Amino acid sequence: MSEQTTITSTDLIISQVISAWAAQNKTVTDFFNKQPDEAYLQPVAPGRNRAIYLLGHIIAANDMMLPMFFLGDSLYPELVADFLDTPDNPEAAMPSVAELKEKWTTLNSTLAGHFANMDAASWLARHDRVSPENFAKEPHRNKLNVLINRTNHQASHAGQLALMRL
Amino acid sequence: MSEQTTITSTDLIISQVISAWAAQNKTVTDFFNKQPDEAYLQPVAPGRNRAIYLLGHIIAANDMMLPMFFLGDSLYPELVADFLDTPDNPEAAMPSVAELKEKWTTLNSTLAGHFANMDAASWLARHDRVSPENFAKEPHRNKLNVLINRTNHQASHAGQLALMRL
Repeated sequence: MSEQTTITSTDLIISQVISAWAAQNKTVTDFFNKQPDEAYLQPVAPGRNRAIYLLGHIIAANDMMLPMFFLGDSLYPELVADFLDTPDNPEAAMPSVAELKEKWTTLNSTLAGHFANMDAASWLARHDRVSPENFAKEPHRNKLNVLINRTNHQASHAGQLALMRL
Repeated sequence: MSEQTTITSTDLIISQVISAWAAQNKTVTDFFNKQPDEAYLQPVAPGRNRAIYLLGHIIAANDMMLPMFFLGDSLYPELVADFLDTPDNPEAAMPSVAELKEKWTTLNSTLAGHFANMDAASWLARHDRVSPENFAKEPHRNKLNVLINRTNHQASHAGQLALMRL
């Protein structure tokens, strides 16, 4: 196999992983464009998280990729307390669906812009939760792995959202 | 970047994709080992699929990878009619949870055995749903892409299973 072919293979796989991420992203977007915003104040199943909570939760989880990938600060650190650190609480004040949808859109385009500029070496470099010393021993703890995990995280919650009777 | 390094990168990413697959697999296995089998006759949410249906559904979907990857026939073609082609029907006769769990285990070890023997070139080759002519134009329609999609499919249903009050 020539070097050229091999480099192309790596780039091809990385682009496939990014496409899978974008597809899960689009599933969530499409879901939240289906109905009036009030509909998303319903839980996905009796006594379970509300759809609005899951939207905030996915935003907060995805937003962490910015600092993890050394791309700057999270855009919306104020979401961490209500959407990552605590379960859904229907009594708690929370942003409107419209506001979360705007954050979702901004975050997605911010991440997409960064991802488009990252080459294979960058995807295969360490993220900020692993030290250079440990990364030398565990090279799979790279940024691409975080993206794969975040994609499955989105898929898991998208599956829950799909259970809502909208 | 030397050829050696690049080949290693491709293999590394493929191994990460396979690990993500195996992790979702394990989530489903762990879920079905938590409770007595009768518990899985409950729907994941009112009026939605029963857990036993989702187990059969994931088996049938994963089983398709054998023929798609030119690895032989599906192990359990008899599951397709009830678990892929039709939605859950609580009135329909279906295999026991014990029987499905056995099929799940056998299928997982069969697939794992094949995956361990596939090299990068094989993962990046076409699957049987795309013709050689179309694959030349759309090289992302390879086996690895199917595995990525099946991983997200598992994650989506695992998210639904997690809603059950077990």
